[in-house]
Amino acid sequence: MVIILKKDSDKAQLDSLVNWLSGKGVEVHKTVGTTQTILGLVGDTSRLDIDLISAMEIVEAVRRVQEPYKSAGRKFHPEDTVIKVGDTQVGGGTLTLIAGPCSVESEEQICEIAKSVKASGATMLRGGAFKPRTSPYSFQGLRGEGLRLLSIAKKLTGLPVVSEIMDISQLPLFDDVDVIQVGARNMQNFELLRELGQAKKPILLKRGLSSTYEELLMSAEYIMAGGNEQVILCERGIRTFETYTRNTMDVAAAPVLKELSHLPVIIDPSHSSGRSALVAPLACAAVAAGADGLIIEVHNDPPHALCDGPQSIRPQAFDALARRLHVLSDAMRQAV
Amino acid sequence: MVIILKKDSDKAQLDSLVNWLSGKGVEVHKTVGTTQTILGLVGDTSRLDIDLISAMEIVEAVRRVQEPYKSAGRKFHPEDTVIKVGDTQVGGGTLTLIAGPCSVESEEQICEIAKSVKASGATMLRGGAFKPRTSPYSFQGLRGEGLRLLSIAKKLTGLPVVSEIMDISQLPLFDDVDVIQVGARNMQNFELLRELGQAKKPILLKRGLSSTYEELLMSAEYIMAGGNEQVILCERGIRTFETYTRNTMDVAAAPVLKELSHLPVIIDPSHSSGRSALVAPLACAAVAAGADGLIIEVHNDPPHALCDGPQSIRPQAFDALARRLHVLSDAMRQAV
Amino acid sequence: MVIILKKDSDKAQLDSLVNWLSGKGVEVHKTVGTTQTILGLVGDTSRLDIDLISAMEIVEAVRRVQEPYKSAGRKFHPEDTVIKVGDTQVGGGTLTLIAGPCSVESEEQICEIAKSVKASGATMLRGGAFKPRTSPYSFQGLRGEGLRLLSIAKKLTGLPVVSEIMDISQLPLFDDVDVIQVGARNMQNFELLRELGQAKKPILLKRGLSSTYEELLMSAEYIMAGGNEQVILCERGIRTFETYTRNTMDVAAAPVLKELSHLPVIIDPSHSSGRSALVAPLACAAVAAGADGLIIEVHNDPPHALCDGPQSIRPQAFDALARRLHVLSDAMRQAV
Amino acid sequence: MVIILKKDSDKAQLDSLVNWLSGKGVEVHKTVGTTQTILGLVGDTSRLDIDLISAMEIVEAVRRVQEPYKSAGRKFHPEDTVIKVGDTQVGGGTLTLIAGPCSVESEEQICEIAKSVKASGATMLRGGAFKPRTSPYSFQGLRGEGLRLLSIAKKLTGLPVVSEIMDISQLPLFDDVDVIQVGARNMQNFELLRELGQAKKPILLKRGLSSTYEELLMSAEYIMAGGNEQVILCERGIRTFETYTRNTMDVAAAPVLKELSHLPVIIDPSHSSGRSALVAPLACAAVAAGADGLIIEVHNDPPHALCDGPQSIRPQAFDALARRLHVLSDAMRQAV
Repeated sequence: MVIILKKDSDKAQLDSLVNWLSGKGVEVHKTVGTTQTILGLVGDTSRLDIDLISAMEIVEAVRRVQEPYKSAGRKFHPEDTVIKVGDTQVGGGTLTLIAGPCSVESEEQICEIAKSVKASGATMLRGGAFKPRTSPYSFQGLRGEGLRLLSIAKKLTGLPVVSEIMDISQLPLFDDVDVIQVGARNMQNFELLRELGQAKKPILLKRGLSSTYEELLMSAEYIMAGGNEQVILCERGIRTFETYTRNTMDVAAAPVLKELSHLPVIIDPSHSSGRSALVAPLACAAVAAGADGLIIEVHNDPPHALCDGPQSIRPQAFDALARRLHVLSDAMRQAV
Repeated sequence: MVIILKKDSDKAQLDSLVNWLSGKGVEVHKTVGTTQTILGLVGDTSRLDIDLISAMEIVEAVRRVQEPYKSAGRKFHPEDTVIKVGDTQVGGGTLTLIAGPCSVESEEQICEIAKSVKASGATMLRGGAFKPRTSPYSFQGLRGEGLRLLSIAKKLTGLPVVSEIMDISQLPLFDDVDVIQVGARNMQNFELLRELGQAKKPILLKRGLSSTYEELLMSAEYIMAGGNEQVILCERGIRTFETYTRNTMDVAAAPVLKELSHLPVIIDPSHSSGRSALVAPLACAAVAAGADGLIIEVHNDPPHALCDGPQSIRPQAFDALARRLHVLSDAMRQAV
Repeated sequence: MVIILKKDSDKAQLDSLVNWLSGKGVEVHKTVGTTQTILGLVGDTSRLDIDLISAMEIVEAVRRVQEPYKSAGRKFHPEDTVIKVGDTQVGGGTLTLIAGPCSVESEEQICEIAKSVKASGATMLRGGAFKPRTSPYSFQGLRGEGLRLLSIAKKLTGLPVVSEIMDISQLPLFDDVDVIQVGARNMQNFELLRELGQAKKPILLKRGLSSTYEELLMSAEYIMAGGNEQVILCERGIRTFETYTRNTMDVAAAPVLKELSHLPVIIDPSHSSGRSALVAPLACAAVAAGADGLIIEVHNDPPHALCDGPQSIRPQAFDALARRLHVLSDAMRQAV
Repeated sequence: MVIILKKDSDKAQLDSLVNWLSGKGVEVHKTVGTTQTILGLVGDTSRLDIDLISAMEIVEAVRRVQEPYKSAGRKFHPEDTVIKVGDTQVGGGTLTLIAGPCSVESEEQICEIAKSVKASGATMLRGGAFKPRTSPYSFQGLRGEGLRLLSIAKKLTGLPVVSEIMDISQLPLFDDVDVIQVGARNMQNFELLRELGQAKKPILLKRGLSSTYEELLMSAEYIMAGGNEQVILCERGIRTFETYTRNTMDVAAAPVLKELSHLPVIIDPSHSSGRSALVAPLACAAVAAGADGLIIEVHNDPPHALCDGPQSIRPQAFDALARRLHVLSDAMRQAV
């Protein structure tokens, strides 16, 4: 950490700051210039409160040198984390394909889609039971009943299931869910993250609509600080000024997050664009950029889907896309 | 609502769409052009699912004409809502000044600040007990104990108190809190909003970091749909590309939200900028733009505040600012 | 175009508006509801000034149905445009690889890089002579001399050259330049665009830092309206709140622009990220998403490049990347 | 400037970097930690190329401590700059009110508006002759003829005039224009800025749609580096995700720019919002935040304005607003 002091800062205050910092167990190196003094801090600065230091009267600015995430960061954990889910895994060279409807609507619907995406090579089944909808008047999901139907589809196909939690109180209902998803709007629901730190199953953590990489990794850190190290990071589009697409998919998230962290990274091309015609090209881009997998909305009847129809693709389209993605993934491996 | 159909759309599909819409109780007017057909829908379209229609094969685009919020909107509720809190009120011409520390830290701290801001003309006391912090290693608030200390300061000064809730499970602890705050990161925590729709007290709803006016009003609608009509809207800065300030205060939020909605609107200049030197000019701007009030972080010792020190102002600065704001507010009224 | 009128709008004003519109040669269809009247306009609405209509007293909102760009749009020009440049082409299935240094620095530098990237399969050479630099104290390019050196490298290797123009007055110096680049900061320099509409050579038009797809296409329309139909669209990263990368590459630009327009689309992974380590994954993503090509900064000595060193890759890295991109491009074609 | 080196960086490379920096005339202080080495540079670092240093192999990151703008910055020029224009001035406590139509349309129009805004207290007249329009099919301004009409209005009323330049080649036509405006889209048209550095008249420099404060000040620096120190900074709204308003007015620009720079700052509430109903509240907010003045679009017949009608206010509305702004401005001064 580097602390830049104000011009002509008071000597007594400076000494007191240096003492206080030394007391926190960090080494302080002073650079005194004619107009500016700079303090270079060496040691474990991750517990120093940057806000507190910034507020001090003699401090002009504080610049962090090290990342504030330790468990999620690659620095102290150089090998890739691979997360086992049922018979499959996320990371470690596997192309994870999570597919299924936005919402679970009925037993027929979820089972039909599950069989279809499994036949096409999906490695997990997604399906929403608790649905975060912008309007209180929109369909809110089948809730507990949705999770029950998901279990039926899981038993039928053997596919592990991923479903979104919206509140701590729903946790007991997620017993038969293999991967718990935290949605973009809950990425900084810190009470929920803390609770999931106690869970014994993988968490799929979606990046918030306007969250930085660092904030996403800090949210992962919340979960990991509680003891649950099975976190899958997920890029799902960020909010920009562009209105043609629902969001802007930040494909750089894959290589950047994999550089900063050892956790696996998947991408959601469906929410990223909000348009079914863009799902295939964005999915290909994600794999080419090095993502560990994709989460894709597939619906057998998009015009009558109870939510997010415009961004869902049909089972046949998913089948073609899955084949395309494997060709691409193989070509990438070969071309290294 | 206006539905724009694809070029050369199938006649049978079009008839079926028109029938389906009529069945939903809306009148359908067709505009047939040489290259494009447009459907104009008249009646109560607020329950039509725009996503579902957009996904239909013959539909190119759907444009809403009416706002999707009914309870929060001004159209069916033209008079301003005024919310009573203890002996004071929000809206209706009162200049609401909510002041206090980011976090409650000790009985001495909260009581001293409460007495001071009351003397300066604050109408309510703020103080965080549950703190949403980006890092799991930062101070997380005194939680239940913080609320207890806040009650002591309330009893001492008579000021109604505002404090932030982070999870449904904390609700029983908020009995003695006068206004429950929903933070920016929870603006779309729909389960929490729904629960607060059952609460019998005012909710201060902060705009999310990248939320539109419409989304903020839809979140208010969630609370109001549950029966709780006492919602105070709060602008607290949005996220942009600018990094000099923590966020960018959208001062237009005051006149826009007051035009679209009957709910009172307050502004938070502290979180909007993240810099104490900007609190006064931004507070003045907010009042000049027509905001019903402000929520301001005041700390008796900012350099040692346990959170958000850089954006807190001292009690003396608040005192000067409060006087300035009243002069301004009076001048505005006079100058109409 | 759809015009939504205000509630209870004056009948005489409405009639006058309808007459005025009819006089402009468009058909007007009225949808009268109990609370709202909507006008559907049919015919050539591209010359109607949407701002003028929006300002009218009885108008609540105007929604466009058709795109405002005719020459750049795909609607009236369904086949892909292919642009010939020297012995190569952009679009039509060719993988265009434009490579070279940010700035031309010396004859040795540009010639060495040109030979190297040609050997690796680049189809064009890039090199900046006029450099838009944020600071007046940074290196501003060799200007006329830079273009002269670029001609030498072109003669030596046979590679067509691409270079950026910054002002109309520089146009006479671009005689031997094969493709004139308009930088992101000049995307809406309308006087320059108009002038380039008279030029007889291809224009590489970069998307502005915060420009929408529609604005980019309208800028292409400026050039095309002057008679020059050889426009190559280029995504180069947009500005968002993320600070880890210099910009956020919007990979969806490739499929979206190719859907809306018949013009070829290339992507610049170097400026998109500002980090050399991200150039390869982003280049792969761009090709996988369907871009017609890439423009990449290659420097033989990045640490001593006079500009944009951090985002330049070395010739060896470009060589490996070019091979990888061809494998990828072949796999994509195969996998359709 | 602070240079953070990579872990375990090569000693020889480090020595060579230190020597190179010393050769540039800056003092280098080394902070060697167990995991990280930091270099603190002291002296005039404004000429060091931060990009060049960032690209070096042993460098992890570079953090600037001092601002890169010297002429525009307040550090070496603590007193406010006051700019004389005709009989009025910008800065120094004067409330500058620049008013007039978006476009000059006819002699009658510009003269009528000029007389009216003068009577209401405007200190300068604005009027566009060269108009940057997104569409090549929209009205592009009367160009040279527009400037001629502006001169007539100036002679008639005595008001100094402000008009926008779009290209260097237009400069000879601006002889009788008192303040030359550089529009948001040209804020980084560096060739134009450089040329205006030679001009002998004040430049009104508008902030780009997605430009940072620092970039705006660097563009001012371009003009000032050429010898023209009469620069007026202008906030005109930035682009965000919000679509209800055309742009988001960043009211903090006034206090921030006035803290960082000695140049006067005015705000444009018309382009900031794109809605006439918001002009008055945003204008009040700007003055309350400490802006030195406003530039406002006033049209005698907004529904028939040839451009930007929706954001223009009528002369009577401007008259009321001007009175309101003076009351506000007086109250602010009084309340210090």
